[in-house]
Formats: sequence, structure tokens, C-alpha cells
Amino acid sequence: MATSEVANGNHLSGTKGKTITCKAAVAHGPGEPFVVEQILVQPPQKMEVRIKILYTSICHTDLSGWKGECEPQRAYPRIFGHEASGIVESVGEGVNDMKENDKVVLIFNGECGECKCCMCKKTNMCEKSGVDPMKKLMCDGTSRFSSIDGKPIFHFLNTSTFTEYTVVDSACAVKLNTEDNLSLKKLTLLSCGVSTGIGAAWNNANVHAGSSVAIFGLGAVGLAVAEGARARGASKIIGVDINPDKFNNTAETMGITEFINPKDEEKPVYEIIREMTDGGVDYSFECTGNLNVLRDSFLSVHEGWGLTVLLGIHGSPKLLPIHPMELFDGRRIEGSVFGGFKGKSQLPNLATECMKGAIKLDNFITHELPFDEINQAFNLLIAGKSLRCVLTL
Amino acid sequence: MATSEVANGNHLSGTKGKTITCKAAVAHGPGEPFVVEQILVQPPQKMEVRIKILYTSICHTDLSGWKGECEPQRAYPRIFGHEASGIVESVGEGVNDMKENDKVVLIFNGECGECKCCMCKKTNMCEKSGVDPMKKLMCDGTSRFSSIDGKPIFHFLNTSTFTEYTVVDSACAVKLNTEDNLSLKKLTLLSCGVSTGIGAAWNNANVHAGSSVAIFGLGAVGLAVAEGARARGASKIIGVDINPDKFNNTAETMGITEFINPKDEEKPVYEIIREMTDGGVDYSFECTGNLNVLRDSFLSVHEGWGLTVLLGIHGSPKLLPIHPMELFDGRRIEGSVFGGFKGKSQLPNLATECMKGAIKLDNFITHELPFDEINQAFNLLIAGKSLRCVLTL
Ligand SMILES: [Zn+2]
Ligand SMILES: [Zn+2]
Ligand SMILES: [Zn+2]
Ligand SMILES: [Zn+2]
Repeated sequence: MATSEVANGNHLSGTKGKTITCKAAVAHGPGEPFVVEQILVQPPQKMEVRIKILYTSICHTDLSGWKGECEPQRAYPRIFGHEASGIVESVGEGVNDMKENDKVVLIFNGECGECKCCMCKKTNMCEKSGVDPMKKLMCDGTSRFSSIDGKPIFHFLNTSTFTEYTVVDSACAVKLNTEDNLSLKKLTLLSCGVSTGIGAAWNNANVHAGSSVAIFGLGAVGLAVAEGARARGASKIIGVDINPDKFNNTAETMGITEFINPKDEEKPVYEIIREMTDGGVDYSFECTGNLNVLRDSFLSVHEGWGLTVLLGIHGSPKLLPIHPMELFDGRRIEGSVFGGFKGKSQLPNLATECMKGAIKLDNFITHELPFDEINQAFNLLIAGKSLRCVLTL
Repeated sequence: MATSEVANGNHLSGTKGKTITCKAAVAHGPGEPFVVEQILVQPPQKMEVRIKILYTSICHTDLSGWKGECEPQRAYPRIFGHEASGIVESVGEGVNDMKENDKVVLIFNGECGECKCCMCKKTNMCEKSGVDPMKKLMCDGTSRFSSIDGKPIFHFLNTSTFTEYTVVDSACAVKLNTEDNLSLKKLTLLSCGVSTGIGAAWNNANVHAGSSVAIFGLGAVGLAVAEGARARGASKIIGVDINPDKFNNTAETMGITEFINPKDEEKPVYEIIREMTDGGVDYSFECTGNLNVLRDSFLSVHEGWGLTVLLGIHGSPKLLPIHPMELFDGRRIEGSVFGGFKGKSQLPNLATECMKGAIKLDNFITHELPFDEINQAFNLLIAGKSLRCVLTL
């Protein structure tokens, strides 16, 4: 880095090949408030892309990463954030599918297009650039970020978006066919939570018209499942949450047709759902990360064909609360990462569908703030007040 | 029963509508030797069929039922047996899909054709005549069997085939398009174990040509999985068993291309399989009912798309030895009952495929005995010496 010329990031032209000085929200320790400060961003290396971030939003994974909840993943100083859209500033050697000024969204679960998994239609994993919470550096083992005095700053989830400029593998940037920045703001949501929910309904469950669905946990991911199920024509979409504030107009707009608050019920939730649906729903989605809820969602699907899709993160070392013989009742369970979407192959089409209105993204943006107020945006998410708060850079 | 005329079962004509006196192997207590004795078999009631059994074979479920391993399922005296073929003696009111002299195989997992599950393509469960280990009587709550002095004898698994005549729901008898009894002998195997294995490969896993497969436990079911996978063109079929006798010519004939005996290995079996297959097999099949083996089979499939099909019965109250987060690696697990076959709809076609030689049934019949030697047939199975011993009535 010491050898490359330093440019001012506010001028998009003329930065190519140079280290950029720009503003980033740096986390210096677990749970410590972000410090918005000047950092240095090196040029992209082979098969990398440097991106000028225009919008970034905040997801629960940022929250748990920032808090350092999982010891082995800790690394500070670090630039968090993994939902973002922006403009390609420059590309490294070998990148042929993007060029300067292309509009992109970033994805934490990359698609290199060449590994065994990328070549297989049945999975959206990627052996090279797939999601890896332990990864702190670029593939060559170094960082593209540093403080003004040259100390390295760690990367996060293949993306690191709380910064004016970031560098990612080309596998983790998806070129979009949109020209206006307003669209780009909405499409930021496709980076993670909303795609995850929609994809869980479309790709993992393959929800069919007229089917019944139960969603456990009505955060952004759960509501995105509802939106995906609604778009597929599901006739009954049951939302389950212990927070009564979730049962508001927004949820109904997104397709939820019935609500259950387990705190208001004496019977187990799965029994209520079986009664409401003549034996159980066709598909259930676990978006809470709670083992008891996992069991409720498993038992709420119809025997013979019901499928539970797991979306919530389960940190405890406990096993699946399912007996092997219960699988002989024909209920199935599977996990979903990024909604089963192969990001680079499928997100451009999803973005087009969203622009056409098949999926309503606006409802997910409950708050907007300038980038400098990132700590306030975190507080909103912690308090359960926001679905997504979009920060404008 | 006291009011109906009694006929001698040795004369097929003239028995219709009458109670038949015939020979059966009756279990009078848990694990007690079968007593071959005269019993009375009542005529079929509404939607029932009375069948003259020609061949019956023995499966591990008969063994565990006979031993009374599961307390709540105990009921004596009882007629066990659920793999059999024979001839329709007479049909009860409302049975239109079979008539006297039709050749049939019996199925413990019936297909009524009318319930919600039977109407759904995604499952082979049946709400009316599906497999139910707790069921001891016909649907009207009475038995069709009794001792000569009129004491009721219990039914077993919707079938009860260790008898010259049995009565079953029409949902549990499958009409076959074969005329010769020699074919019928082989097709007896389609009643349970062999169909279960083939169906697990064809219906549950949908094994594709060129794929890799691992089978844990090389009894009749495991070898039927191998035969089903071979018929589908799987290129690598790995057999795992701790009994070296299983690695014989028979197993190779049935498609097993590689063997692993965990007792000969220091590394976990899943590691060996991953090394053999560049990361794991496409499909694994758990046919042992052992939890450690279940975990090995789960971890032996390739991340991203690998599927484990559960066939072994797990009696212990322990939970699935899988962490919720492990499902996010894209490995899936599901249970298989009767190989996912809808018996009445799909078995006739399977039988035709077997007659054409697509599936080689002969290798599964390792022993044949007259019906009177049923206790000897049980000893062969207990000693692990037989795959299937067919008893001729
Ligand atoms: Zn890849
Ligand atoms: Zn996220
Ligand atoms: Zn059986
Ligand atoms: Zn049915």
C-alpha cells in the first residue's frame, strides 16, 4: 500500500489503481460504538472489485458480529456491514463481467461460477467465496483496508459495507440492470435478509399457489418469506410472533393472513396451526433461532409432505429436538442459506421482478438515516423498532 | 361368526361367504415358538378381501413384533407376517378393483385412494390404511381370525400372512398382472423390504445416473437400495457393514462397488467416504437403526446437495444427533416408509419391471422352506444367515 498513490474518494474519476482515502464506520472492540473515521482502501487485486457504496442497511448478523458473540470470529478493528448497493469504481485483473460505473448489490454468499458447488444446480454454496463467518481477510490472506497510519482493518462476511469504498471478490458483487439511484436504494435489501426470505419461499420450499404457510418470527426475513409466499399465491399465511407490535398493517400488507401470539394461547402453537389448517400447513419457516420454536414449526406442518425451512441461527450446542422416528411421519426439515439463491445468476432477475412490483420492497424500509448516524440505526434494530434502516453515504 | 357356515379351506370353490377352517402359525406369547394350528377365518366384510396365501417371507419387523419388543404393541394370540402373495378367495361389499382368483401381493402400508394423503402426490401415507404398529384389529374394531373354540386372534400390520387364509382391507392388497405362481413367489418380496429399498433409491432419493451412493447396513433393505441404485445407473455404490460375511458375491451382484467395514478402519467412516468421493456421496441410506451410524451416514453426503434417507428403525428415545446449524451446510435428511411407493398405484409397474429383469429379485431369496418350518425360518433370520426365506403354503 505504501507504494500506491493515494486519491480522494470524493472524485470517482482518477482513483483507479490508487489507494483511496475515505470515510468508514470502524468498530474498535466488541459492542463499542462505531467511530466514523478516515481510512485507506487499496485498489482491487486479481478477480476483485472496488465499489463506491451508495446505500447500506443493517441486519442481525451485523449486530451479533459487532457484539463479538462468537469468540472465534472476533477481530478488531473491523468494518462490518453486508447489505449494500453501489457503483463499481474499478475492477482488478481478470474481472470481465463488470466494469467502472456498473450498478451492483453486494452478496455475502458469493458465486465464483467455477467450483464444484457453483457447477451444481442443487446448491447455492460456493467453495471459494461462500459465506464464512470466520473469514476476516481477502482470499490472499491480506486486508484492503487500513487506518490512516497504516494498521490493517479486518473485513467482514466477504463484503464490509459500512464504508464509502470497499473491495470484494468479483464473486460477491452482482451487476444490476438499473440506472436510477432510487431503485438502487430499494435493491440494497436484496443483499441479504429480503432475498433470504423470498428465496426460502421460492427456492427451498417452492411454495405453490393455494398452499398454506406458517412463519415463526416476523422480522425482515420472516416478512420477506410472507411476501414471497404471497407472490406465489399461497392462500393462507400464518404469522407467529411474541411481539404484538409485529401484527400491524405492514405485516398484513406483506401477505400475512392470520396471526398467532403464543403468549395469548394455552395450547401449543403447532396444535392451533393444525386445527386452523386441517392437519397442518404445507410449509413452515423458522426465523427465530429458538429450539422450542423450531420444534413447534416442525410439528406445525402436515404429515406426509410438510416441509420446515430453517432460517434462524442456532447458537447453542444443542441437537435438533426431533426424534429419528418422527421423520417417518413424512415431515421434512432443511436449512436455507441466502434463500437458496445463486446470487450472480439469479439476483438480476429477482431485482427486475422487484422493479416490476411483483415483490414490494418499500415496506421493508422503515427508517432512513445519513451514514454518520449509524449508531442510531443500530439502536433502532436492537430495540426491534426497524425492519431495515437504510443509511445513505 | 357363530352364524356363518364353515368350509374347508383346501377347496377354493365353495368357500365364499363362509368361515374357512385352515392352518396358521400362531404366536401365543412374546418370543414363544409359533404353533401351527387350525384356525377359523371369517368372510371379508365391506371393503375387505379374503386371500389364500401362497407364499410368505419374514422381515425384521415380524421379528421385533413377535418378540414383543415394544410393550404397547403387544397382543397375543396373534398372527404375524406381512410379506406375502396369493390369490383372492373372495371380496367383500364394495370392492371393485379385485375379484376371485386375482393374483395379489399384500402391503402393510395401504392405499385407500380417497383420503387427503392418498390424493396428494407428495406422500405415500394413507390416513385410513397406512402403516400402524398399534393396530391389532380390522377397521371395525373386530378380528377376522379365531381359534377353533372361538377365541379371537389378533391381526398384525394390516396383513397377518402366516396363515393359509387372511382378510385385509382392499387398500392393502395389490392386484398383479402375472399368471404363473413362480413369478408370484419372487414378487412376494415386493410386499415390504425389497420395495422399501428400491423405492428409497427411486422415490425418496431419486438417484441419478453417474451418482455416488453409500449404504449403511447390508441386509435385504440395504441390498435392495443397492439394486435400485444400480438400476438407475449410479456409478459408485459403497456398502458399509460390520459383518464381513455381507461382503460376498451376492452383494457385488447387487451393485455394491466398494465395501467398508468400520471395524477395519481407524478413521470415522464418513471421512473415508468423503475421501473416496471428492467430498461425499450424493445419497446415503441408513438401514441399521443405530444413532452413531445415522450421524456417519449424514456426514458422508456432500455438502450443498447430499441427501440421507432414513430406513432403519430407531427405538431409543434419543434425539437426532444433528445440530441445527449443520443443516445450513446443505445436507438433508428424510425418512422413508415403504420406499415412498403408493402401493396400489405403483407396485404393479414395479412388478412388471422386476419380471423384465430390471430388478433382480432372485438374489434376495436365500432360503426356501415349507410353511410348517416357520420356526426354523425365524432362526435363520435371527442368525443373520438369510436375506429372505420364503415359506410355501
Ligand atoms: Zn463457487
Ligand atoms: Zn444479513
Ligand atoms: Zn417388513
Ligand atoms: Zn388413503
